[in-house]
Amino acid sequence: MNRYSPVLDAVRKDKPLVLQITNAVTVNDCANITICFGASPIMSDDPDDAAELAGKADSLLLNIGTANAKQIEIMRSAADSAEDSGIPIILDPVGAGASAFRRETAYRFMNDYPLSVIRGNAGEIHSLAGKDACVRGVESDEAADLSLCAALAQESGAVVAASGAVDLVTDGKSAVEIANGTPLMGKICGIGCMAGSAAACAAAVAPPFDAAVFSHCALGIAGEKASIYAKGPGMFKQALFDEVYSLTADNLERYAKILEVKV
Amino acid sequence: MNRYSPVLDAVRKDKPLVLQITNAVTVNDCANITICFGASPIMSDDPDDAAELAGKADSLLLNIGTANAKQIEIMRSAADSAEDSGIPIILDPVGAGASAFRRETAYRFMNDYPLSVIRGNAGEIHSLAGKDACVRGVESDEAADLSLCAALAQESGAVVAASGAVDLVTDGKSAVEIANGTPLMGKICGIGCMAGSAAACAAAVAPPFDAAVFSHCALGIAGEKASIYAKGPGMFKQALFDEVYSLTADNLERYAKILEVKV
Amino acid sequence: MNRYSPVLDAVRKDKPLVLQITNAVTVNDCANITICFGASPIMSDDPDDAAELAGKADSLLLNIGTANAKQIEIMRSAADSAEDSGIPIILDPVGAGASAFRRETAYRFMNDYPLSVIRGNAGEIHSLAGKDACVRGVESDEAADLSLCAALAQESGAVVAASGAVDLVTDGKSAVEIANGTPLMGKICGIGCMAGSAAACAAAVAPPFDAAVFSHCALGIAGEKASIYAKGPGMFKQALFDEVYSLTADNLERYAKILEVKV
Repeated sequence: MNRYSPVLDAVRKDKPLVLQITNAVTVNDCANITICFGASPIMSDDPDDAAELAGKADSLLLNIGTANAKQIEIMRSAADSAEDSGIPIILDPVGAGASAFRRETAYRFMNDYPLSVIRGNAGEIHSLAGKDACVRGVESDEAADLSLCAALAQESGAVVAASGAVDLVTDGKSAVEIANGTPLMGKICGIGCMAGSAAACAAAVAPPFDAAVFSHCALGIAGEKASIYAKGPGMFKQALFDEVYSLTADNLERYAKILEVKV
Repeated sequence: MNRYSPVLDAVRKDKPLVLQITNAVTVNDCANITICFGASPIMSDDPDDAAELAGKADSLLLNIGTANAKQIEIMRSAADSAEDSGIPIILDPVGAGASAFRRETAYRFMNDYPLSVIRGNAGEIHSLAGKDACVRGVESDEAADLSLCAALAQESGAVVAASGAVDLVTDGKSAVEIANGTPLMGKICGIGCMAGSAAACAAAVAPPFDAAVFSHCALGIAGEKASIYAKGPGMFKQALFDEVYSLTADNLERYAKILEVKV
Repeated sequence: MNRYSPVLDAVRKDKPLVLQITNAVTVNDCANITICFGASPIMSDDPDDAAELAGKADSLLLNIGTANAKQIEIMRSAADSAEDSGIPIILDPVGAGASAFRRETAYRFMNDYPLSVIRGNAGEIHSLAGKDACVRGVESDEAADLSLCAALAQESGAVVAASGAVDLVTDGKSAVEIANGTPLMGKICGIGCMAGSAAACAAAVAPPFDAAVFSHCALGIAGEKASIYAKGPGMFKQALFDEVYSLTADNLERYAKILEVKV
């Protein structure tokens, strides 16, 4: 068995509590995918509540898709508490290429906290790595650039995951490509956000690198299975939840398209 | 016909306007389940707007799943207006066992307003009833404890509904258990929140005790019907909406598993 | 081919970036329907972020369904920037008949900005046109009144679209009725909000009048197609996404029920 497949059963056995300070657009999807993976989601919109919950949670997801000054304060309150208790912090820099506000918000979290995983689409990750952004909005169809991703991993100390047609995960020394997935995943809002939640579930029970690889691979395989019978984005999203819910370590072992690449 | 079955047609006939100040995670589900039950949802995020709407609404739901200081102010503005106009107020103390902030928020509403129904999962209700919380996050698999629920009902003056594998409703003098439902209901985010919205729909047209029993029984029967053909959480949630929408008083009469228990 | 059918392929070709400052209840539906139409959604909850994004976007949607003072500030920041860059601004006055706060909020946007399209249900539009509101909440089953709609169009300078069993679009000089749609569209939360998002997608690539007609017609036809196999509101909503996603200009040409009426 590859080293990523057992992460699924570890999540289901430990049922980690995953605190998620996230955007208003996909928050329901993030909660449901967390449950489908076998973990327990909790969201918060208050700094004291978030700090207390981060002290009890097993991992913390920060997703800046609709961040503002008030929510950043809540995120920092949660992250301070998460750092104190030593749980992994996952950052999803949604739209980092789309506005200076988002890019700077992502940078500040990167500089101020010991992030375990930074995961975004390739455009967002490239933008954080200093490449002049040609991102419009929150979507990206760029292919992940290994040297940019590795540089960001080295600078931040975090595992970097850049999603796209092929996903790339690197800690600056090792790297893998994950070729699972299906084009319909690009036709629903929130697939990236769900990958962030999945990474936070996995990071509670596995090393950051393995968590990042597992989450993208598992979501991709579930998407492949869903696309067999769900032909439009509406039904596909529901089928994706169903397929994550019924995913097995054997599915992961059998269908994973994980390739080690040289940094 | 048992006394709970006619509540469905009463909701559909009166189409009550149900003002819901609720969390960002499941707000869409709350709106849709309200429509499926035959009532009309309206949400608000402004204190003046909420106060005016509460003056026109037929019931008010307060759900603290992502409450913060600002939203509590909106809830109080709505609740002041609701108290003035005499409409029922339903409190869903989401996560009351998970943080001091939530527990204290729930207490304040309990002490300051004449609540018709307090409904949460068993862990949340027990926590409000003073039991040392062993709740992690917003989920709970505890079985409802009748004496704790009855004590909370007596203290608060509200009907208390504690959901779980078996739901319990009590006003401190009488109590019933509702054994409807299906395990998939625990695998989607928002089932408790939807039960709160359903209770608010029903409380607009029926006494609080009947409203609380009806809402849990109706949602449970709809879930049983949905689980016949929807095998994963994604499709199941959509099927649940469909089954609530097509539910009949005859379904309720035929499938209700309601048992009176001694307090 | 009628002049509205080509709008679909224009959206898909240009993939406009549609900035949406919208309500918490249906924001996920707005994002997904935007993607299904072929455009790219981005949401924002911060004034600086919104201003920067509006400078890059191709159209701006303002939906006041859960507006408050803070969000109005964000909307104004986005609208100022949108006006500077000359992109179309679409207003969805959700609940304008339900509270003074909403009505006044809608008026202020109408008076302060050069709106391209105002679209709401008939009750909301009538209420903005000065008719004494008999609207309860955010729903309405009134039939659109042409003289009220035309008066509002003339007063505001915007194209006015009033949705209902039959939709009405007018710029004060010309008017068309659109008889597409199916009753199930009234049984899901967010159909009006999605029509607003669709109008914003279309207004990025077509004149406001055509955009308003197209969006209601296209959503109506997709709804008709979905209702053939989806019998309850839960499955219907997913099917609606699927049918918008797979809609063709030929479908529009074949099934459009558009009737010019005299103002």
